[in-house]
Amino acid sequence: MSSSPRIGILGAGGRMGRILIQAVQQAGHTLAAAVERPESSLVGADAGELAGVGKLNVQVVGGLESVLNDVDVIIDFTAPAATEQHLKLCREAGVAMVIGTTGFSEEQKQLLEETAKHIPIVYAANYSVGVNVSIKLLELAAKVFGDTVDIEIIEAHHRHKVDAPSGTALMMGDAVADTLGRNLKDVAVYGREGYTGPRDRQTIGFETIRGGDIVGEHTVMFIGEGERVEVTHKATNRMNFASGAVRAAAWVASKEAQKYDMQDVLDLKKSLN
Amino acid sequence: MSSSPRIGILGAGGRMGRILIQAVQQAGHTLAAAVERPESSLVGADAGELAGVGKLNVQVVGGLESVLNDVDVIIDFTAPAATEQHLKLCREAGVAMVIGTTGFSEEQKQLLEETAKHIPIVYAANYSVGVNVSIKLLELAAKVFGDTVDIEIIEAHHRHKVDAPSGTALMMGDAVADTLGRNLKDVAVYGREGYTGPRDRQTIGFETIRGGDIVGEHTVMFIGEGERVEVTHKATNRMNFASGAVRAAAWVASKEAQKYDMQDVLDLKKSLN
Amino acid sequence: MSSSPRIGILGAGGRMGRILIQAVQQAGHTLAAAVERPESSLVGADAGELAGVGKLNVQVVGGLESVLNDVDVIIDFTAPAATEQHLKLCREAGVAMVIGTTGFSEEQKQLLEETAKHIPIVYAANYSVGVNVSIKLLELAAKVFGDTVDIEIIEAHHRHKVDAPSGTALMMGDAVADTLGRNLKDVAVYGREGYTGPRDRQTIGFETIRGGDIVGEHTVMFIGEGERVEVTHKATNRMNFASGAVRAAAWVASKEAQKYDMQDVLDLKKSLN
Amino acid sequence: MSSSPRIGILGAGGRMGRILIQAVQQAGHTLAAAVERPESSLVGADAGELAGVGKLNVQVVGGLESVLNDVDVIIDFTAPAATEQHLKLCREAGVAMVIGTTGFSEEQKQLLEETAKHIPIVYAANYSVGVNVSIKLLELAAKVFGDTVDIEIIEAHHRHKVDAPSGTALMMGDAVADTLGRNLKDVAVYGREGYTGPRDRQTIGFETIRGGDIVGEHTVMFIGEGERVEVTHKATNRMNFASGAVRAAAWVASKEAQKYDMQDVLDLKKSLN
Repeated sequence: MSSSPRIGILGAGGRMGRILIQAVQQAGHTLAAAVERPESSLVGADAGELAGVGKLNVQVVGGLESVLNDVDVIIDFTAPAATEQHLKLCREAGVAMVIGTTGFSEEQKQLLEETAKHIPIVYAANYSVGVNVSIKLLELAAKVFGDTVDIEIIEAHHRHKVDAPSGTALMMGDAVADTLGRNLKDVAVYGREGYTGPRDRQTIGFETIRGGDIVGEHTVMFIGEGERVEVTHKATNRMNFASGAVRAAAWVASKEAQKYDMQDVLDLKKSLN
Repeated sequence: MSSSPRIGILGAGGRMGRILIQAVQQAGHTLAAAVERPESSLVGADAGELAGVGKLNVQVVGGLESVLNDVDVIIDFTAPAATEQHLKLCREAGVAMVIGTTGFSEEQKQLLEETAKHIPIVYAANYSVGVNVSIKLLELAAKVFGDTVDIEIIEAHHRHKVDAPSGTALMMGDAVADTLGRNLKDVAVYGREGYTGPRDRQTIGFETIRGGDIVGEHTVMFIGEGERVEVTHKATNRMNFASGAVRAAAWVASKEAQKYDMQDVLDLKKSLN
Repeated sequence: MSSSPRIGILGAGGRMGRILIQAVQQAGHTLAAAVERPESSLVGADAGELAGVGKLNVQVVGGLESVLNDVDVIIDFTAPAATEQHLKLCREAGVAMVIGTTGFSEEQKQLLEETAKHIPIVYAANYSVGVNVSIKLLELAAKVFGDTVDIEIIEAHHRHKVDAPSGTALMMGDAVADTLGRNLKDVAVYGREGYTGPRDRQTIGFETIRGGDIVGEHTVMFIGEGERVEVTHKATNRMNFASGAVRAAAWVASKEAQKYDMQDVLDLKKSLN
Repeated sequence: MSSSPRIGILGAGGRMGRILIQAVQQAGHTLAAAVERPESSLVGADAGELAGVGKLNVQVVGGLESVLNDVDVIIDFTAPAATEQHLKLCREAGVAMVIGTTGFSEEQKQLLEETAKHIPIVYAANYSVGVNVSIKLLELAAKVFGDTVDIEIIEAHHRHKVDAPSGTALMMGDAVADTLGRNLKDVAVYGREGYTGPRDRQTIGFETIRGGDIVGEHTVMFIGEGERVEVTHKATNRMNFASGAVRAAAWVASKEAQKYDMQDVLDLKKSLN
């Protein structure tokens, strides 16, 4: 397999698909195929023009089958039913996969696990390189500060988000709590109003901001006397997920059949040891 | 009365008193007296050395009576019982007052009102120039944005603060809500956890951070599609209250007997009209 | 003219054109036409699908002429040569214009001025509602603080931006300097290195951050003793320009022939008086 | 030597000396001596009252000699000539030292090195725990991001600071540059104005803010496409240096004769291996 793998984008006409095409381009990799549903009005358009990066001479096609021989790895941020079909086709053709689809049924998850015995698959909860780095920074900071500081986690997302705090905020809280030997369930505080009494150092506070179309911002504060350290991650558009997925695609194309996550891709599992 | 009034500091040996001495010095005014309790070990020390600004040749004295003839205005950030005595002494001597003491009883408040008929007194909830400016900015921003944005108020204070949100955060929330014709009591949200549903534009969110020795930070966000405007006030030490109080002292020394607040001192009552 | 004007988007296949289509949709207005260059592979595609907002049954056409009768106002964020043609066509057809094109020659600017005697045109340096509000906040803050604070302007933009500071940062600096009776040219500081000496209060500092794909962030700090006030504007995508342009289009469609800017559209020219 | 060492504070009446007394108190350690110049008007005052933490029954004395037998370790943030004397007295008495004095001559540095062969001495460029932790976070982030991001360092200090960027900002820049195999001297950019051209990824930008009495703020941004990670340290008063120095004093009192720094005290030298 060449060092610059041939990458195919599924759902190429969707918002995420277009950003993935941009990300392939920006990373200097080769876009080898762009796939849409056969009934889309975008079939036949130039994938580069569609993504706003200028002509790439790759026409959008109406199905994965016809381009399986042209790709080493595909990136799939589509829908569970579509991904189910893609898993089968890629297994047969020996094509590696990077999967960002969410909302799988138990059976579909099972299919993914099973398929990963035959082809290499990256499947991550969060493809952002920055989020994955931030988690490591938080663990290191928590380890050195220990119980000498107060810890607060502030996150902001768009007005349409229906739950709080975000999964990423909870992931950060877990990372910090685990490092400090605390149980997040026992120490999390989700709001403060009225008489609260002085702060208990063991608690971890979450403050949730909702408004507009904020993509996703997270800040963890380690607050001591006369100083504080803050680790902040800001996602400003989906490009950070897209470029993480493309990095995963370039990485996984030459790996052995197995299921991987972003910690594998970024080699973060060993970086603190 | 001269244009540079002779200022006396009460509670000169306390933390706020020392900062007030520094603020008098920084503003280029004349420190005319520094007063402590008669039993303090600091009586006799040089007020400037005590405050860390170098010798001022003003000895700390053990009571207000002996220096009443040396001052045009005194600044009093002490305790209710002490301030009660100071009100009586200043009224007799015709000395103006700037009062930052908190926790008065109803009777003491009554005494303050009554005394202000005979001497000029500044009595403000918050002596910070920046907080008073910020309130005006928030009213203007709310007026122009109207209902096109989501509004969130984030505040941070030290770990010893026992209530939430801060009085200043509520003051900011009131200013915004009043401008928009909303009732803060009806629209305030103090925490978000679990399933919240999409954000209701009419709500105003409060996020309260507690930690370390943070003096006081407030940010109000006006969040639209693809953009946001934030107004932030950060107090990093008590100097901002002290310099506001000194500004009030210089202003009030030549005013007529009446009770004033910081909006009077800063001439903000008319600045938006 | 109806209260919901028929809006046409020029350069519909470009990045800004697609966002303008989204903004028309979000504001609840009617997309009446979408125009591209005749040679674009996107001609014939559905404008809604192209913009990622679902089918709108408006086909992208290859030139403005064929749709002039279908629109009341057009939004033009294209290139100088193209806008030159559009000015002539719109004047003949009596169609209002919102122009966001940059880089005009003197002759093209002259043509714009001349055309605005016959049709209503909005032509603004910055279509963001938030930026225009921020300028007003800065003027108010500068007026109250006067010379009691140090003023610093920090801005951040993407790595491809070739000049510094941004036009918006300079606009903010001008607003502050004018209010304080300073000449920005005389007091601006663009970098600090080595021995600088203590800060001169009359200066206004600019700090310019460049990196990644940051859309545009501006913070103006008013820094006093023990406190500071910050006014921040963050653009997170071009939607804020697009929605400002659509707001301008809805506003200008029924106005008389004249050249307008965003202060007119937002009625900010009188809001501080 | 007991687990709670007897700590002496030199320069007890100075601004830093008083904060060191507060820090000893907050950390639960024993203040064993407080020393001033013999001519100070503060000699004889209670060290606790002086520091604003209530009576401690430790009188300020007018010289180190008389209390050498009462202390295990002294903290010295005074002046080079004074520290020179203290080095000699502590060596004779076998008392450990924590030294925060700056501005030594070469001969004085030599004396310090020589003295550290006989008594344990901590001598650090920066006593802040947070700054030392931040450096480690920056190294880790730089290692994972590699050349995929743009790096910018923003710092803010008070208006009286006469050089730029701060020593801490340069220390952070060095840490990042070293990790990435770049030479800071070659890649540092200290200001941007006029036509700059697109950003060169190898550069590291410094943006320096000066105003008011800001104690010290540093933010390092790792800016990618669609996301960024920021590591921020904010010092809000000198307590963070003081508590770091007290932590160093407690740590060094029982160590062998040698020169140490804060990386030793915090055990950070091995934490990344």
